[in-house]
Amino acid sequence: MAGRAALEELVRLQGERVRGLKQQKANAEQIEEEVAKLLKLKAQLGPDEGKQKFVLKTPKETLTGKYGEDSKLIYDLKDQGGELLSLRYDLTVPFARYLAMNKLTNIKRYHIAKVYRRDNPAMTRGRYREFYQCDFDIAGQFDPMIPDAECLKIMCEILSSLQIGDFLVKVNDRRILDGMFAICGVPDSKFRTICSSVDKLDKASWEEVKNEMVGEKGLAPEVANRIGDYVQQHGGVSLVEQLLQDPKLSQNKQALEGLGDLKLLFEYLMLFGIADKISFDLSLARGLDYYTGVIYEAVLLQTPAQAGEEPLGVGSVAAGGRYDGLVGMFDPKGRKVPCVGLSIGVERIFSIVEQRLEALEEKVRTTETQVLVASAQKKLLEERLKLISELWDAGIKAELLYKKNPKLLNQLQYCEESGIPLVAIIGEQELKDGVIKLRSVASREEVDIRREDLVEEIKRRTSQPLCIC
Amino acid sequence: MAGRAALEELVRLQGERVRGLKQQKANAEQIEEEVAKLLKLKAQLGPDEGKQKFVLKTPKETLTGKYGEDSKLIYDLKDQGGELLSLRYDLTVPFARYLAMNKLTNIKRYHIAKVYRRDNPAMTRGRYREFYQCDFDIAGQFDPMIPDAECLKIMCEILSSLQIGDFLVKVNDRRILDGMFAICGVPDSKFRTICSSVDKLDKASWEEVKNEMVGEKGLAPEVANRIGDYVQQHGGVSLVEQLLQDPKLSQNKQALEGLGDLKLLFEYLMLFGIADKISFDLSLARGLDYYTGVIYEAVLLQTPAQAGEEPLGVGSVAAGGRYDGLVGMFDPKGRKVPCVGLSIGVERIFSIVEQRLEALEEKVRTTETQVLVASAQKKLLEERLKLISELWDAGIKAELLYKKNPKLLNQLQYCEESGIPLVAIIGEQELKDGVIKLRSVASREEVDIRREDLVEEIKRRTSQPLCIC
Repeated sequence: MAGRAALEELVRLQGERVRGLKQQKANAEQIEEEVAKLLKLKAQLGPDEGKQKFVLKTPKETLTGKYGEDSKLIYDLKDQGGELLSLRYDLTVPFARYLAMNKLTNIKRYHIAKVYRRDNPAMTRGRYREFYQCDFDIAGQFDPMIPDAECLKIMCEILSSLQIGDFLVKVNDRRILDGMFAICGVPDSKFRTICSSVDKLDKASWEEVKNEMVGEKGLAPEVANRIGDYVQQHGGVSLVEQLLQDPKLSQNKQALEGLGDLKLLFEYLMLFGIADKISFDLSLARGLDYYTGVIYEAVLLQTPAQAGEEPLGVGSVAAGGRYDGLVGMFDPKGRKVPCVGLSIGVERIFSIVEQRLEALEEKVRTTETQVLVASAQKKLLEERLKLISELWDAGIKAELLYKKNPKLLNQLQYCEESGIPLVAIIGEQELKDGVIKLRSVASREEVDIRREDLVEEIKRRTSQPLCIC
Repeated sequence: MAGRAALEELVRLQGERVRGLKQQKANAEQIEEEVAKLLKLKAQLGPDEGKQKFVLKTPKETLTGKYGEDSKLIYDLKDQGGELLSLRYDLTVPFARYLAMNKLTNIKRYHIAKVYRRDNPAMTRGRYREFYQCDFDIAGQFDPMIPDAECLKIMCEILSSLQIGDFLVKVNDRRILDGMFAICGVPDSKFRTICSSVDKLDKASWEEVKNEMVGEKGLAPEVANRIGDYVQQHGGVSLVEQLLQDPKLSQNKQALEGLGDLKLLFEYLMLFGIADKISFDLSLARGLDYYTGVIYEAVLLQTPAQAGEEPLGVGSVAAGGRYDGLVGMFDPKGRKVPCVGLSIGVERIFSIVEQRLEALEEKVRTTETQVLVASAQKKLLEERLKLISELWDAGIKAELLYKKNPKLLNQLQYCEESGIPLVAIIGEQELKDGVIKLRSVASREEVDIRREDLVEEIKRRTSQPLCIC
């Protein structure tokens, strides 16, 4: 029943928090340093606040300087005490802050929660101002590309399971981009802003992007042309090997490191059986400032049939990369914790699933209820309550209609509508015989089961794995 | 592995959202009415906003007038566009708004999410300004007390499973309180504020509460005394029956309805096997304005041994009740959807669990990993990656150390520390023989398992139910 799932979620939350808190206590001293920094802000609050041992606030400063040109989309807020706050823009920066404040050097976790962007919403493409992200990150000092490969494996695993059609994961490396900018002649000070321009190549043509680089950002046209020769290339591991032979690029230390790591990454992805989903794409740049190594982005591929129809236009559905410097920005002593992770855009995926289901006219089952406890005659509410309590106590997900004397037909109809596979029917004769009639909703078959065997029989019949449609 | 749990959560979110959106589309017209109301606020935004079909905002007005005297704790915010917003105070009011805007007349759901209160935090008692609530609610027009009884069953089920010690659920009914106030001579206009005073009886003595009623709120002392005679009573179903005989109270229509429902509720709770956890307590009032019928609150009981130590002092850990008027406040035509539900204070419960574990020096397992894929010699990273990929694809929760050549001892130690029960060890000999060595971390026993049987063997050995400690 619903209580069970809620409980499991609670247990999970608890585990995470116990770990965090223990660490917090052990490092109360370090936290005091943070407290000092925030005292100016806290002074605006009541006198009681000064006594607290823990820093509870994540004020606006936490978010500034991490998102590059996207910073304008941060939702700034001022509370009735005049304190400057912001709503979180993503789950990555808060995760890095959490690691630094709790001195965690090593953790693997997922997190599903809401984030906020003060952007123009576009409902049909699943773009909202308040939306869910599902993040998975691995933090810690490890041997190269092993956690990175796991992130890509998870991304492919999730996207495959959701049955949203064929997809491709574009992969690149910030060091290759930086090396490329250097050998093409981009001044150091323009690396980030030119990176933002390159990032637009998934939506704009090369001509448009070049115009922005030259016209708006003052890059020399010949420099832009050299960039153009590189960023229009994409391919598999063979492109990595080809660029490792590139006379200019292979002379750049940064680019060489990036290419070496990508080669290793492709080896691991082959072993994980997902190399065919991956495309090394030199135009992939990712706008956010905090990436330092491998970056990736999953895009859906349209089948020829779909391409003829209205395009879905959801753009990327998942993305991420390596950010080795972010945790250090929050640590008073600048200690680094290398991280790699991914974010999945939940609403974007939902909008695709919804369109697909609408096209197929399929029904989504919204509950996990295994059995409806029903009655064949009137005046059996007490018996239904007693039986459902037995089933709940045994861990069965059971429901009943909240009516004193529901008609059997209505009870069966409810199961059809909500996709409940089994009905446990109580009748006067069954009570006398010590049995329950167990009905399969799909086949309409009914069998008498001895009451003491009912739990096992329901478990046996509903042990199939979870299905989303 | 972690991707699987995240996926299941995604699937659940998706189901909820698909249901919501379908309803939304069917009722686009009704939503237009809401749009009109909000146009004044929306006018402050850019011209693009006017084109939207859906109302995305839940501005400050949504929250005002629902929480009584607690309204002062709402976190008001103003964004950089000057729009007035608030952070949600609980999950109940947003749930009611969601039902009204989507014209849902009937739903059962749980929701775990953060809420915000601009109160004085108290870390040791698990009181924060940002905290999690876990809510469960049943909305719809049903026969009396069946969903109410289910809510109490779920509350008891969750609190029992969390092993936080013995607890008691206090139950009362707003109609009994109102009837009692009426026959005691409280003026109609003072019902809500006197209700707030009564609600303080769990922390303050009767004398203090009486002083507030008479001194601050201007109640006649003899009226307060009459209230005192009632609110100091508590008991089981026999107290309900006794009050049904009370010559004054039984003459009040409201009180009579409340008492009749409580009697029925006790019958159902008996069938659910939880009547011994329930206490009818006339001092329970619940501060929030929106309750209309049965109300309840779970408090932990201290054992004699605990009472001698530092008191835990977490107060109530779960509470709720019936709120039949709240959805109607958000419906343009005032159509009502009766609701009953409960909230669990997640951090309060965590603080108790943490104290208990600290006292027992127990370790909390923070992952669900079933098996670690390990190697006995060097140069087996590729084989580890291949095997873990096979296990992940078969739905096994598996991990490996992110090192090229980890020592076997370190791999075993990692399992001990993180509570992973099994190790699948690859060695050169095992590869030749087509087997994997499966080691039980607890017993240190090792058995060679044929590679094709490994998934089944791991599933068989790790099919025990979830345990929180």
